[in-house]
Amino acid sequence: MFDNNEHTVVLLSDVDAEIDRLLMSSPPQVAEAARYHFSAGGARVRAQLGLGAATALKLSPKVAMACALAPELLHNASLIHDDLQDGDEVRRDTPAVWSRYGKDVAISTGDLLISAAYVAIANHPNPAAALGAVHHAVTVTIDGQTQDCRTDCPTPERWATIAALKSGPLIALPICLALIAAKVEGQDTAIRAGNALAVAYQTLDDIEDRDSDLANGSTNICLSLEAVGNAPVFAKNIACDRAYAALLTARKHANALPSNAGASLVTLANLLESKLKDIDHAT
Amino acid sequence: MFDNNEHTVVLLSDVDAEIDRLLMSSPPQVAEAARYHFSAGGARVRAQLGLGAATALKLSPKVAMACALAPELLHNASLIHDDLQDGDEVRRDTPAVWSRYGKDVAISTGDLLISAAYVAIANHPNPAAALGAVHHAVTVTIDGQTQDCRTDCPTPERWATIAALKSGPLIALPICLALIAAKVEGQDTAIRAGNALAVAYQTLDDIEDRDSDLANGSTNICLSLEAVGNAPVFAKNIACDRAYAALLTARKHANALPSNAGASLVTLANLLESKLKDIDHAT
Repeated sequence: MFDNNEHTVVLLSDVDAEIDRLLMSSPPQVAEAARYHFSAGGARVRAQLGLGAATALKLSPKVAMACALAPELLHNASLIHDDLQDGDEVRRDTPAVWSRYGKDVAISTGDLLISAAYVAIANHPNPAAALGAVHHAVTVTIDGQTQDCRTDCPTPERWATIAALKSGPLIALPICLALIAAKVEGQDTAIRAGNALAVAYQTLDDIEDRDSDLANGSTNICLSLEAVGNAPVFAKNIACDRAYAALLTARKHANALPSNAGASLVTLANLLESKLKDIDHAT
Repeated sequence: MFDNNEHTVVLLSDVDAEIDRLLMSSPPQVAEAARYHFSAGGARVRAQLGLGAATALKLSPKVAMACALAPELLHNASLIHDDLQDGDEVRRDTPAVWSRYGKDVAISTGDLLISAAYVAIANHPNPAAALGAVHHAVTVTIDGQTQDCRTDCPTPERWATIAALKSGPLIALPICLALIAAKVEGQDTAIRAGNALAVAYQTLDDIEDRDSDLANGSTNICLSLEAVGNAPVFAKNIACDRAYAALLTARKHANALPSNAGASLVTLANLLESKLKDIDHAT
């Protein structure tokens, strides 16, 4: 997805190989469930962000791997646990881990991936600061997920807050880990970019899932905008416009990061904008 | 419970205060559930083991806290997730977290405590090795829990393997973290002591819970011994004798650790033996 990967010595396939290696020393049933989850797809966006930032900041391959691997593993742990918490039976067009392997295996698989994410930090040059950044990201993600589970139809503003809490920290984390390793400032800026990207990404998802979310009683920005008096077609337009604005915000913060460390965030923003335009212009 | 705490500058109450501090920056609902869980009791055995080993090895208060805190947080995370996985509604005579706060909050609370355990490692002098030891302990614990969930009535030998896998690693972990910090050998020995203590501890628990485990269909060493042809009274006697033997094994390994690092394990073995005698002599 990102062109900048070809300039780094660590490739996305190396990250997948490292995940495989981690799973080889894991309990068989949990490793099988994790492999099943990863093999169902996923663009490894957070790993790509980490590799991109590491390349821009000229970090070593070992450190680049740490920046890519920890957020990617945490993201997938959160998907496995979220699907169980939300009762979502399908992920990436196949049964979710809990639906395929049972709830107990899904809990253990998510636990293992959280633990593995922290082991990846062993290769970070500033483990103490990196551990703090990872825990902060986990804490805020859990906050967002907990609020999401307990909210039926939030106001549009509250929807955006929850989307940023739930998905922003793990988008920003790969950049934050690379910044810490390079000893340069910008973590707050990266987090603001991550939050804006999270809102844009979740809006795209919600526009596509509006009908199924209505049927399932899930939160959705279109339904939140409809609930405050907008007709469905206008709700979609407003959602699109807010997502465009979020992408502008994301690019502004990403471009403000030192040493081009936010280039991969800009690439992600461009990709999301292209998808948004397709959806916006679809009837 | 352990006398040796009075010789260290870090007290068990300091560990509880540090847990409180960690929860202050946590999402409110999750922090409330975690506080509820911790306030219901628990002897903080793993924290005490860490403080004891740190005192014996003359580690600094900051490192002692890391050795105590990480295993204690992981243990409690495992209790919260295990109760949900096993469908156990009661823990320490009060409703289990999932039963009181819901399954989604229980999953998030366990996740938060796993993450917080790793942050505690930030103060360890060899974070890379410590992270590896923590992840190894988590991996084996998950293996034990997964096997336990999937086993109805194991043979007595398999029961012991699962008990060691499930509870041994987090008993040994505080000692292992202290040994790594002091740059002395003995991790394998500590793990063997931990495994033996786990078998003794679980046997005690099973003898007390034999009737309720029979009713609930839970695994239990007494039921496993009965299933291979022993009358209940003989099954209890065999279980007691195996627990005494496990405690001898635990003491042997604990005493083999350098610099008296296993003293707190011996104290735990003595405590368990005293409880075992009470049960053994009860009609």
